[in-house]
Amino acid sequence: MILQPVVNIAEICARKGVENVVLSPGSRCAPLTIAFARHPKLNVRTVSDERAAAFIALGMALRTGKPTVLICTSGTAALNYAPAVAEAFFQQVPLLILTADRPPEWIDQLDGQTIRQQNIYGQHIKNSYTFPVDLSHKDSVWHSERMVSEALNETLAYPAGPVHINIPLREPFYPAAGEELVFDSDVKVIVEEPANYSLSEKQVAQLQKEISNYNRILIVSGQQNHTTEIQPALQQFVEKTGAVIVGDLIANIHRLPQTIRHQDAILACSDPEKLERLQPDLLITFGKSVISKALKLYLRKYKPKAHWHIQPAGQLADTYQSLTRIIRSTPEAFFGTIDATKNDTNYSSDWTEIEHKAASFLKDHTSKAELSELTIVARIFENLPPQSNLHLANSMAVRYANIIGLAAGKNVEVYANRGTSGIDGSNSTAVGCALTNSNITTLVTGDMAFFYDRNGLWHNYLPQNLRIVILNNHAGGIFRLIDGPKQQPELEEFFETRQALDAANTARDFGMNYIACHSSEEMESTLMTFFAADAGAGILEIFTDSKANAASFAAYKQALLKAL
Amino acid sequence: MILQPVVNIAEICARKGVENVVLSPGSRCAPLTIAFARHPKLNVRTVSDERAAAFIALGMALRTGKPTVLICTSGTAALNYAPAVAEAFFQQVPLLILTADRPPEWIDQLDGQTIRQQNIYGQHIKNSYTFPVDLSHKDSVWHSERMVSEALNETLAYPAGPVHINIPLREPFYPAAGEELVFDSDVKVIVEEPANYSLSEKQVAQLQKEISNYNRILIVSGQQNHTTEIQPALQQFVEKTGAVIVGDLIANIHRLPQTIRHQDAILACSDPEKLERLQPDLLITFGKSVISKALKLYLRKYKPKAHWHIQPAGQLADTYQSLTRIIRSTPEAFFGTIDATKNDTNYSSDWTEIEHKAASFLKDHTSKAELSELTIVARIFENLPPQSNLHLANSMAVRYANIIGLAAGKNVEVYANRGTSGIDGSNSTAVGCALTNSNITTLVTGDMAFFYDRNGLWHNYLPQNLRIVILNNHAGGIFRLIDGPKQQPELEEFFETRQALDAANTARDFGMNYIACHSSEEMESTLMTFFAADAGAGILEIFTDSKANAASFAAYKQALLKAL
Repeated sequence: MILQPVVNIAEICARKGVENVVLSPGSRCAPLTIAFARHPKLNVRTVSDERAAAFIALGMALRTGKPTVLICTSGTAALNYAPAVAEAFFQQVPLLILTADRPPEWIDQLDGQTIRQQNIYGQHIKNSYTFPVDLSHKDSVWHSERMVSEALNETLAYPAGPVHINIPLREPFYPAAGEELVFDSDVKVIVEEPANYSLSEKQVAQLQKEISNYNRILIVSGQQNHTTEIQPALQQFVEKTGAVIVGDLIANIHRLPQTIRHQDAILACSDPEKLERLQPDLLITFGKSVISKALKLYLRKYKPKAHWHIQPAGQLADTYQSLTRIIRSTPEAFFGTIDATKNDTNYSSDWTEIEHKAASFLKDHTSKAELSELTIVARIFENLPPQSNLHLANSMAVRYANIIGLAAGKNVEVYANRGTSGIDGSNSTAVGCALTNSNITTLVTGDMAFFYDRNGLWHNYLPQNLRIVILNNHAGGIFRLIDGPKQQPELEEFFETRQALDAANTARDFGMNYIACHSSEEMESTLMTFFAADAGAGILEIFTDSKANAASFAAYKQALLKAL
Repeated sequence: MILQPVVNIAEICARKGVENVVLSPGSRCAPLTIAFARHPKLNVRTVSDERAAAFIALGMALRTGKPTVLICTSGTAALNYAPAVAEAFFQQVPLLILTADRPPEWIDQLDGQTIRQQNIYGQHIKNSYTFPVDLSHKDSVWHSERMVSEALNETLAYPAGPVHINIPLREPFYPAAGEELVFDSDVKVIVEEPANYSLSEKQVAQLQKEISNYNRILIVSGQQNHTTEIQPALQQFVEKTGAVIVGDLIANIHRLPQTIRHQDAILACSDPEKLERLQPDLLITFGKSVISKALKLYLRKYKPKAHWHIQPAGQLADTYQSLTRIIRSTPEAFFGTIDATKNDTNYSSDWTEIEHKAASFLKDHTSKAELSELTIVARIFENLPPQSNLHLANSMAVRYANIIGLAAGKNVEVYANRGTSGIDGSNSTAVGCALTNSNITTLVTGDMAFFYDRNGLWHNYLPQNLRIVILNNHAGGIFRLIDGPKQQPELEEFFETRQALDAANTARDFGMNYIACHSSEEMESTLMTFFAADAGAGILEIFTDSKANAASFAAYKQALLKAL
């Protein structure tokens, strides 16, 4: 017999719109496992490695925008969630984490799988609850039901993020054989009507007045999911004001024709005169983090007179060391409301001109250059299926991708774990994304990130729409591309950390298609079939040499400087 | 140019006896990487998956008793250490964890690989320091040097455990090309003379008086490393008092001829009369956790009149719900000092008689029964090389092993991660153990634990003395052996979590010998060569069927009840 309030957690989750649940096997969490597995409206999957389980849940929540529920047993299981929980916290992804625990009287009594689970996620969680262990008093039942509703509301309240409920459970953990679970029909559910973060008429008037003081307005979008609302608002604002808009790949505004997308290339330009012409008076930012280090360094040096950041709620980040105003509104409301008149300036054309130069240089360079990671990413991007998802692993994959940029026409939604920018969990996140929709989901990753998270493929739910492209240089090649480590005698052993694996055996283990390429020709001949909708889950592993990549990247940078 | 106090961390570690360092590659941690890699007295290895790196460090510290240093970059790297840190905390293993961090002014500013690292290990760390970020004042240098000494002292002070220093670092991270590092010769080092936890004469007299009130004394040893000191003290005490001593495999007292080692079998006996005869008046315990659930349940039901626990310092655990006295002494000092006279009782012979019955039953049963996980473990144990190390993975492997027990003559040292009893990290811990000595290190593991921690083998230091025995039933077979889940319709999908892998491809990936066995005959024919000293790193994978195992285990339990 399982306690009814524990059974009802599943019911409240279902009523509050939860669709996906990822659990990891355990005995202490059996009451939760059984309640969730038997609930008719919940899609429950089991993944044994909790680190991978949590990143898969993250990928699901990222794609759907709905809280995914994670369930694990007591002990280090909960700690294996921690990397994904931190990523969810900083990337603002809704997760509800349910950890089974021993009851309080058995903590620190040397029983198995018992650690100190209260507040286990420290400062990387929106809130951390303890489920009542004694449920005989009716107020405890009220407490338990209220807690689940509140926790789910908190996962979604701006900024979205992970919320934890630690659930101490005494035996029995299992219903009697054949005993039916009943989900109560009168569970308490609290609906949250979200805040409407918009500006008052007075605020709008004031901001319009202020904005007219600036001739050179630069908008930088940080990471955000693709939405249909933001683009028309931005387009309208840019047309009215002559503002320039810059967006990394993960800003998901590459479909907007005006978006400057080659800032990584453009701002590598060393000509101070050209760079000064791009300097804004007013910088307006929104969204989360920015990939482009060149952009960050540029704006920290060529500071705007004013920097407005648009963010509905939450703590500030002064990414460019120039923040002067925080605007508590959604970017849609801001850009859609402010009715500024066009400033008379060449600012926009200065950016557009150099953007075109960079774009055409990149196109030309990557089509002619020999096989290197940069050219591979360019070719992959040209071949990405329309209406597909792209997940970029951290370290070099996301950097190459951001240099290349995506063409507007592809309707590709871009994801990357840039909340913490770890190399952990990218396979799993891509799997979670692929499991929640039928579009092709392509992961572009390096060998280190891929093998780090091999367990993201270790479960019984391999999505057939998953395509993994591995740039295998048998090392953490990034260390050969940045200045400091490449001059150290420790480069190969302690920075690059040479590793011998290729993915052939992994593909065999998990029943995935596998193609190895060592040349442009091999790659070209396979791209169409690899990305075909009915090809099934596959790995395309492209081998390059770390030293050759570094040489080729240096050549790219030199040629770029000449071209701009 | 790297800050001298950062370079000196390596020097202080070396002077304080650190030998082994495990680092994971990163740029923010480069000053630490370079300082430690260049230090002539430190053995530095690099492991890319931080979760595995931390368990490898744990295995090293476990085997050597000396603090192992862990070094990682900023961001989720530190969180991937968390499972091993918790295990080190509860298993009391000395680790010094150095995490590179951004300087405080850049936290929460949306820069990459930036999380909130202060106190990141919450309640699972002995202490958590922040290294000074500004080192221009001489007091800051004094602070930094003192901190490293203190932290290392704390890792070893009873109870040993993990200590964390978070190290915020500003650029530059790298010395100029060719620049030499100099380790200061006058670094401050604080030596700690450890407490001598022993009893005063008055205490000894009082305890001797008390102890004479009890006729039936039962000693239970929890987990501890093998030492040469404890056995003579115990032997002397047992001979003087007629006390009975019970020890799980992980108590490492199986070399003592008097040790009762089949408590898992004995206490499964359902005859209340027999069980009553084994009930102690006085229970004396020491060490950490106990594997045997049968023993724990027995002692919670058949309570002693008094329970003394011997533990030099630290928080209490009342594992048997009967604790009446805590003795702040080492067990060696207690058992070596108390000069109690022999009590006139049959207590010892009652235990010995049933121990012999259980031992001879087990020997007979496992030699006759068909291939099952229990018989496999029995055969493996018979073939373990003398003077070798045995690491037991959690879940069923450690339970089977504890039922079978080890013969006294083998000089096998036994390790298992019973601090938190997680299935994570056992490959890595065994690797760490194998890397710090030349004896054969055998890991006995299930398929779930093995594949969970495949990355424990993903590095360039595969120890040739490592032998991995995998009991592969393609599932978390434990769930079919315990009562609750086997009656649920969710058994196969959500508890056992069927998984299809075998280890052949993994062995191929990491260049290990690989032998697959499907029968007793195959296993018998291979054991000698598998364990040969010069055979090289190998995996012996023995396949069984989860259902057949469960049936066979049920048959064992029935036969056992008849035999006792």
